[in-house]
Amino acid sequence: MSEIRQDRTNGEWVIIAPSRGERPHARVLADAKTPRLAIDPLCPFCPGNEDQLPAIIDEYSSPEAPGWHTRVIPNKFPVLSTARQVPSDRLQSGYGNHEVIIETPRHDIDFADMSADCSEAVVRTWHHRFGAALAIPGIEAVMLFRNRGNLAGASLGHAHSQIVALPFVPPRLRSTLDWEYAHFQTSGKCVVCEETERELESGKRVIECTERYAILTPFAAQRPYEQWIVPRRHTPSFAMANADDLAALSDTLQNALARLRNAKGELSYNLVLEPGSLDSEFAPAAHWSLRVVPHLTNPGGFELGTGMVINPSSPERDALHLAQSWG
Amino acid sequence: MSEIRQDRTNGEWVIIAPSRGERPHARVLADAKTPRLAIDPLCPFCPGNEDQLPAIIDEYSSPEAPGWHTRVIPNKFPVLSTARQVPSDRLQSGYGNHEVIIETPRHDIDFADMSADCSEAVVRTWHHRFGAALAIPGIEAVMLFRNRGNLAGASLGHAHSQIVALPFVPPRLRSTLDWEYAHFQTSGKCVVCEETERELESGKRVIECTERYAILTPFAAQRPYEQWIVPRRHTPSFAMANADDLAALSDTLQNALARLRNAKGELSYNLVLEPGSLDSEFAPAAHWSLRVVPHLTNPGGFELGTGMVINPSSPERDALHLAQSWG
Repeated sequence: MSEIRQDRTNGEWVIIAPSRGERPHARVLADAKTPRLAIDPLCPFCPGNEDQLPAIIDEYSSPEAPGWHTRVIPNKFPVLSTARQVPSDRLQSGYGNHEVIIETPRHDIDFADMSADCSEAVVRTWHHRFGAALAIPGIEAVMLFRNRGNLAGASLGHAHSQIVALPFVPPRLRSTLDWEYAHFQTSGKCVVCEETERELESGKRVIECTERYAILTPFAAQRPYEQWIVPRRHTPSFAMANADDLAALSDTLQNALARLRNAKGELSYNLVLEPGSLDSEFAPAAHWSLRVVPHLTNPGGFELGTGMVINPSSPERDALHLAQSWG
Repeated sequence: MSEIRQDRTNGEWVIIAPSRGERPHARVLADAKTPRLAIDPLCPFCPGNEDQLPAIIDEYSSPEAPGWHTRVIPNKFPVLSTARQVPSDRLQSGYGNHEVIIETPRHDIDFADMSADCSEAVVRTWHHRFGAALAIPGIEAVMLFRNRGNLAGASLGHAHSQIVALPFVPPRLRSTLDWEYAHFQTSGKCVVCEETERELESGKRVIECTERYAILTPFAAQRPYEQWIVPRRHTPSFAMANADDLAALSDTLQNALARLRNAKGELSYNLVLEPGSLDSEFAPAAHWSLRVVPHLTNPGGFELGTGMVINPSSPERDALHLAQSWG
């Protein structure tokens, strides 16, 4: 049973989830560099090991064996759960939802290696489950992320992503939406559209620009080789992406991950979907995007103490290297 | 040359410090579990290797060879520097200061293993350099931290701590001070004093209580086995700790680190000094403390996206284990 606790001395929020300490880290610790079998008999996400899954919520079917592209299952060690009633003080309970998306039947490939069909199935599954999570009663924000490699927090090596539905808007999203709203109030513009435009003009941090997306290193990148995939069309929420947006996202993300691997080799990384907002008040100001955050550094006490990050790299140099690392 | 950059799309701050990418990670990567020599000829912090140091700012002398307890040097790869004039827009420059405190001439011991004399010399050096950093023109906050082991961000194995002087109050300290101030305005009380009192009464998360300090696991602990060393007397800033406070802090911290090692073995950890404030406006509301943050988990995409932390442990269970792990 998890609890959402606020530190009374500084207002920061923490999810206390003791059952997650039991996750299968020790048994199948997945380093991004370890070569893997196509089917691993010990992996709960591989076909044939369905008895190790808590349940199957959804499948995206495939004409080829084993009959599915992607699967959606409940997280076996959820940080939040809908199993309880929504209590009067929702923030103190662990109410919410936590799903895992198994991205492929194959144990040995990552998103960058999938066929276009398979990677598009993943992105469509994200979109579908993102919408389903938003529709759960009492849910106010949905976070979609992907941990690849144990340094990035993954406890299993089989390609998967996660969707957590929260009964409140989490601190970072809250401050992002407030920031975007304030910018719109004073300038009449979406700050993400404006910033992307500025980046494309300067060209200093542009990795690639396609019809629908810009791939950039952020001006204030938090990590070396961080990439930001931002829709060029103003789109307030990921829920509002259309079929063409999703197909192009799958392609653009494969591109970004291939560039990262060409530039730095296999490594642990996180994907973080900045969800934007469906709230009509925020619609002209909010703008979804996707961040690719590689694990090349270990943040230390400075980051813990200040709430700031030190990036020991140059976003301009990283962008140049990534721009030259295609194919 | 470092820069402090604000992400225009969400207001978050990042220090871009490309020269830190050149730190000696690869050559002398220090895992907390690797046994070490008493003097390592390759270690720049060991006696006899002074030619590898950029300079020696200060020494705390010792009657025994090599004649010093602790040394203070400039960080060779500073995240901030006073080498430039304070420009008109201070936030955009990398103005500040970054010192390293070499805590002992011996390469093979950590804080927990030092004699009482040696550990007290470390804490006194912290206090002295903390005050010196606050006195630098244009400095508004001083962060003191210690990274132990490479998972905790250390690039060298020799026991050391760091002091960064910032030309502004960083986001987390800003929100902590604002929070404490708001609490004082409504209740007339210091929230840290109040919270410590409440914890000592409930006893659920108390590891130990001495004359001057309480050792607790925080109610909303961010990591498994996190410990909070909090002065029982209301003290707004670490700069206001007196000689007896410092001697007791050295003793209490050795106690906390020994408990951690007894409970979980050798591991990487961070120390973070919550500095409090010398500002007279904040004096009745602010309260310094010291956090011991072990590295037992790898935060992933959820933490990056939400700005919240998932602690896969129970602070109550951790406190019990640490309370029973003495001696």
